[in-house]
Parts: sequence; C-alpha cells; structure tokens
Amino acid sequence: MLDTPRGNRLHIALFGRRNAGKSSLINALTNQELAVVSSIPGTTTDPVFKSMEILPLGPVVLIDTAGIDDIGELGALRIKKTLEVLRKTDLAILVLDPGYGVGDYELELKARLAEARIPVVAVLNKIDVAGRANLAELEQSLGQKVLPVSAKTRQGIEELKRELIKAAPADFEAPYLVGDLVEPGDLAVLVVPIDTAAPKGRLILPQVQVLRDLLDNDAMGLVVKERELKAALAKIPRPKIVITDSQAFLKVAADTPREVWMTSFSILMARYKGDLLELVRGAKAIKHLKPGDRVLIAEACTHHRQPDDIGKVQIPRWLRQYVGGELNFQWVSGGSFPEDLSPYQLIIHCGGCMITRREMLYRIQAAKAAGVPIVNYGIFLAYVHGILDRALEPFPLAKMEWEEDS
Amino acid sequence: MLDTPRGNRLHIALFGRRNAGKSSLINALTNQELAVVSSIPGTTTDPVFKSMEILPLGPVVLIDTAGIDDIGELGALRIKKTLEVLRKTDLAILVLDPGYGVGDYELELKARLAEARIPVVAVLNKIDVAGRANLAELEQSLGQKVLPVSAKTRQGIEELKRELIKAAPADFEAPYLVGDLVEPGDLAVLVVPIDTAAPKGRLILPQVQVLRDLLDNDAMGLVVKERELKAALAKIPRPKIVITDSQAFLKVAADTPREVWMTSFSILMARYKGDLLELVRGAKAIKHLKPGDRVLIAEACTHHRQPDDIGKVQIPRWLRQYVGGELNFQWVSGGSFPEDLSPYQLIIHCGGCMITRREMLYRIQAAKAAGVPIVNYGIFLAYVHGILDRALEPFPLAKMEWEEDS
Repeated sequence: MLDTPRGNRLHIALFGRRNAGKSSLINALTNQELAVVSSIPGTTTDPVFKSMEILPLGPVVLIDTAGIDDIGELGALRIKKTLEVLRKTDLAILVLDPGYGVGDYELELKARLAEARIPVVAVLNKIDVAGRANLAELEQSLGQKVLPVSAKTRQGIEELKRELIKAAPADFEAPYLVGDLVEPGDLAVLVVPIDTAAPKGRLILPQVQVLRDLLDNDAMGLVVKERELKAALAKIPRPKIVITDSQAFLKVAADTPREVWMTSFSILMARYKGDLLELVRGAKAIKHLKPGDRVLIAEACTHHRQPDDIGKVQIPRWLRQYVGGELNFQWVSGGSFPEDLSPYQLIIHCGGCMITRREMLYRIQAAKAAGVPIVNYGIFLAYVHGILDRALEPFPLAKMEWEEDS
Repeated sequence: MLDTPRGNRLHIALFGRRNAGKSSLINALTNQELAVVSSIPGTTTDPVFKSMEILPLGPVVLIDTAGIDDIGELGALRIKKTLEVLRKTDLAILVLDPGYGVGDYELELKARLAEARIPVVAVLNKIDVAGRANLAELEQSLGQKVLPVSAKTRQGIEELKRELIKAAPADFEAPYLVGDLVEPGDLAVLVVPIDTAAPKGRLILPQVQVLRDLLDNDAMGLVVKERELKAALAKIPRPKIVITDSQAFLKVAADTPREVWMTSFSILMARYKGDLLELVRGAKAIKHLKPGDRVLIAEACTHHRQPDDIGKVQIPRWLRQYVGGELNFQWVSGGSFPEDLSPYQLIIHCGGCMITRREMLYRIQAAKAAGVPIVNYGIFLAYVHGILDRALEPFPLAKMEWEEDS
C-alpha cells in the first residue's frame, strides 16, 4: 500500500484552529495512534503529507496543515501556504473547535475552498466534552452542514467517513485492482469463458482492467478460455494467481493447483469498487436469514432483463431454497437507493460496474450505518458456489473476517 | 477460410434472367473458373449457396438463384423461393441481359428488394458483345444506376466491386483478425507498451479484439510489456506468433526468435479493416516518389493533433528526407475523401479505426480505380522501420506481393 504512487491517492487536507483536534481526528479516521509530530507552534510552516489508509476510502494522503493554522502563521504567508495546499487538495475537512466556533479564520478558509471548488466537510469536534448545543448556530454561521464528532469516543466517525465519500470527486479511484497481488515479472492467468452472453468481438471491462493493471505493475497476463486452462497450466511456469469469471469457478478450481491463488474478477472488482471487508461481513449474514425476512436487491443500472435474470430470478430462487421458505424481496434499480434501509435484514447489490466507486462506497457505508449487512452479486455467488473461502485467500484481512465467527 | 462460419459472411444474392450471365459474373468476381452446376433449366428449385472469396470484400456467400430465375419457376412458387432467398440476403446483384433489358421480372424483383430494404447493385452484362448503347434507357426503366460490365473481358468488374462495397451493410465484418493464423491450443504473445499515450486503465481496442479473436479460435494470448518480453519468452513454450505495437517493433524483433512469426497490431488491423494486398502494393510505390510529387494524407477522424502528429509532422518529415526534397502534401480528414484522386502519386491513409470496414474498403477501391497507390499508417511505419518484410511473413499472398518487383 505504501508503494501506491501519491498521485493516485485521494488528497484530504485537514484545516482548523490549533486546538480543534485535527491530529486526534486523523487518528480516529485511520484507527491508529500516530506520534504527534510537534506540539510547539511555529516549528514549521510547511504542511505535512501523510500517506495512510482510511477504510473504506482506501489509501489517501492526509495533509496536516498544523503549520499554517490560525496561530501557526499570520497574514500573507499563511495565505500563500494555504493556497499551495489547496492546489493539491481533492477534499477538505474543516475542524471546528467548540471553544471558538466559526470566526474569521473559518470563514476565510471556506471562501478560499469555494473559490478553488474544493468540497469541504465541516465537523464539530470534542462533542464528548463540549456537547453539541451550539450546532445549529455554527451551521448557520458557516452556511453549511456541520457534523458533530468525537475523535476520542469515535462518535460520528462512521458518519464522517460517509460524508467524505459523498464529497469526494466523482472519479476518485482505488489505486489497485490486482497490481498489489503480483510482483514484477509475475504471471497471472485470466480465465475468460466465451459464451452467448459475451459481447461480440470484445472482452468485458473488468477483464481488460485487470490486464492493464498487471502491465502497469510489470506483470503479465495469460488470457485463456476455461476449456484450454488445464492444458495451458501444464505448459507454462506456475502462475502467481488465476483469476476467473465466477461462472467457471468450479471447473477452474478443479484445474488450478491448490497452492496457486485463485479468485474471481467479481471479487477483484468488489475490492476495487467497494469495500471487500464489509461485503464479506454481508456474506456472513446470509446464513442468519429466516423465512419472512426482508431482502433488498439493488441494481445500479436498468439493464435489459434476461429470462433467467440474476437479480429477479436466480438469487431469490436460491435464497428461498436456502432458508426453506418465502422471503420478502424488494427491488430497486437505477439511481434510486432507499433512504431508510432499516427495514431490511440483508441488501444484495449488483457489482456496480456502471456507477462510480464513490457511489458504491456511499451505498455500502449507508448500509453499515443502518446496521444492515450488505453483499454484492459477485461475493454472493462465490458464497453460493462454496468457493468464497478459496477466492478470499489472496486477501488476508477479508479472509480473517470471513473465518471469524459472526 | 472455408471454416469461416457462414453466419459471419456477407450474403450476396445474384438475380437475373437465365441468359444474363450470372455464372460468368460469379467467376469474374471470384477470379475463378467454377464448374457450372447444371445447365438444364428446372433441375432444382433451390438456390445454391456458395462460400467463396471476393477480394477485397473477403469471404462471402454467393447465392446463385439459377433455379428461380425467370424461366426456372413460375408464379407463386418462384415468389415463395425468392422471398426465402431475400430473408438471407445482405446485398443483391441484379444482372440485366442486353437482349431483354428491364421487364416485368426485373421490376418485380426490384420492388421485392426495396420492400425487404436490401441494397441492390444493377449491372448490364455482356457489353463486350452487346455494347452499352441502351444504358441510359435501362437506368430510366429500372429507376437506378446500372453498371456496364463484361464478365468475359473483366471490363467494369473493379467498379462493380466498388459498388458492392458501397452498397454493403455498414456493419459487415471481416471474419478473421488473427484467428486464421492460429490452431486450437496455440499461444500468441501480445506486446503492449504502456506509455503516456496509453489510455488510463484500459487497453486499446485492437489489442482487445485480437485477444478475443484468439479465444474465439480456442487459442490463448499472453499479454506483456516490451520490457518483460524477453524474460517471458525464456519461460514459456515457443509461441505461434508475437504481435506487437508498431512503436516497439525493433526491440520486439530483437527479442523474438527468428523462427517465430512476428507482426504488428496495425498489420492485423490493415488486413481486417482494409485490403492488405492493395496496401502492400501501395507501400511498394513509396520508393518511386520524387520531389514535387503530390501526396494525399487522409485521416478518417478529426482527432486532437499532438505536437509531433504522425500525419501532419512525422510522415511528411520522413518522406522529405527519403526523397531528398519537398513534396506537395495535401491533407483531408473526417468524412471528406476527394472524388478525384488522379492528381496524387500516393495516398497515405490512417488505420481507419473510427470508420467501418466498408468505408475503408471503398476508399482503397477508389484509389485502385484511379490507379493511385494507397498505403496506411501501419504499413507505412512498418516499411519505414524496415520491418515490413518480417511483419508480412504470416501472410503469404501479401509477402509474395511485397517481394514481387514493382
């Protein structure tokens, strides 16, 4: 993860007065206790760029502006430094101090951010000690929503992550699809069944994206149909990983030596597009479903329905058999995603190939906030076929999550 | 070629009176002397489907309607059989007999073809013996252009091919890209340089199309950057063919064993999209260029010009150096392609990735009709880099054409 080029990472700048609690908020967002770089005001006027992981956003660069906060520098120099930071910022967090609220410093910053068209999420920190009584007043002064949080007790931190996802640029991307699983020179085998559903003369986008990510990471990809896989594996040196379309998983699993990693395009995409950990948690909830439970099946696009449509027919049929009774299915498609997810015991979402990572993460985060497990088609099918276990081997965290008792 | 599934081939039906010369026209189009199936009228009422190659259209199915021509069947049965043929026809040729001209038979057929929205090319055959005196009258009676030809002397046959290309459905495709060069189980290596011009997160379409065509033909493709090629070739069994981006040709040629076929995506696309033989003929004309000659550089789309644009800068610079003097360059782009090509000594066309095969073939055919050599960027660059010779090895006909003295 630390090798992710800084250029690909979402850059999040934290602004706020010296005592607003920017550092503790960084710790809360990253689930880490970081050493405080310096507590002496004015030791440096340069912002500090820290590469870190905020789940589920992925690798980000947090820009710590301690050196240029309200007392770090004054006047022209502070403005110059602030503008320098803004040029590198995709997204800003403005941390309000309950003791000061919204003053000239905050209003000037907000104006600069608006000028630079940088989305800003405002938070009121330290609500564990200072409460949130003046929240409405702060929102009015600042002219935007202010999220009450406590870095110390983690109150509001999940909501903050959701707001960050919502405010992130529409095209922000995860920096890895498969590239972090291979070393330079490694060989990956891509198994691409060609059936009547395959678009004429093309490969589907996830297959092309995986190939490109392999090349970008100095690895190579052998593309083969499932029928030719066994013969191919006998001829070539042992690959690092075999990646298959889910529909061919059982045959491919049988033909791939047990010691070779094997996963599916869907699972790579679930990680790339969404939040693999959360979706694996969702898969674990399937076994707790009971007849009569409410299941939301959500598709991000309104595609032409096949007679044996996966969302309308296959998944409901399989779940009915599994729980041994009727379930209460509801379907949404296209841009609509219910505000209130609390009535559901499970959400099953499509792979989200037609929506941005931001939108997919936002939906997953919304489910998490509502306490409703969410899984996507790819993970669901891997579970149904009994192969999720093997398919998660390349992803130790997700594998641990999967094996942990739910 | 005979393995090309009939479904992919352009279906061309020949209609006309018994003595109009349909069979001799088929022979002229295919450059073959075919055995006449039967000269006894009425032996069969079924149309005969013949898979054959018409250059540069590629593999087609010619539907010989001898059994249902004006004397083969009468009335309802003929109409029924004709409608059956029309359901399978992409393109019709109506052959007029100079002795009969346009009568009820021709007018009824034309009405049926119009009803079925099938494009029709009308020809007046036997002009070597019967002349073309009544051409204008025939055109008026039929209400469309009539092409004067002689199957015997081949007069007008190239123009007929051009009309066929023009009238063909916009989406008709060549049935092979690389699939005819590999056997099931064969391995092809695709060398894909990743530079700043490569679109982010993707492969370009010709690369994807080649991969898909390999899979469609039960072969497999190893995708690798040029830097990793040498190490890859050392590890894997000998591939059937190495296909590279033109820009990496010299390095790839050095790293690929001499006995392995090696070509470029551009050359595969030139064959798929256009007429490799004719473009190779065009390449041979480069060495005859003299200072002051007129060269047309044609691009099918109006892309954003790079500072070192291939059509505007690189090709002219190279040609000036080659002939040792200034040339008279003219440029066209987008949909415009000059009606009169006769002023030019050479036409250099882009790869045509944004236009249909029909349009590209039409342009090549127009150049051929005007007697002006035409080459495309891919073949031109292969020539310039001195690698056309090796890159044509997989294509014996084109290789022979290349080696023949011009």
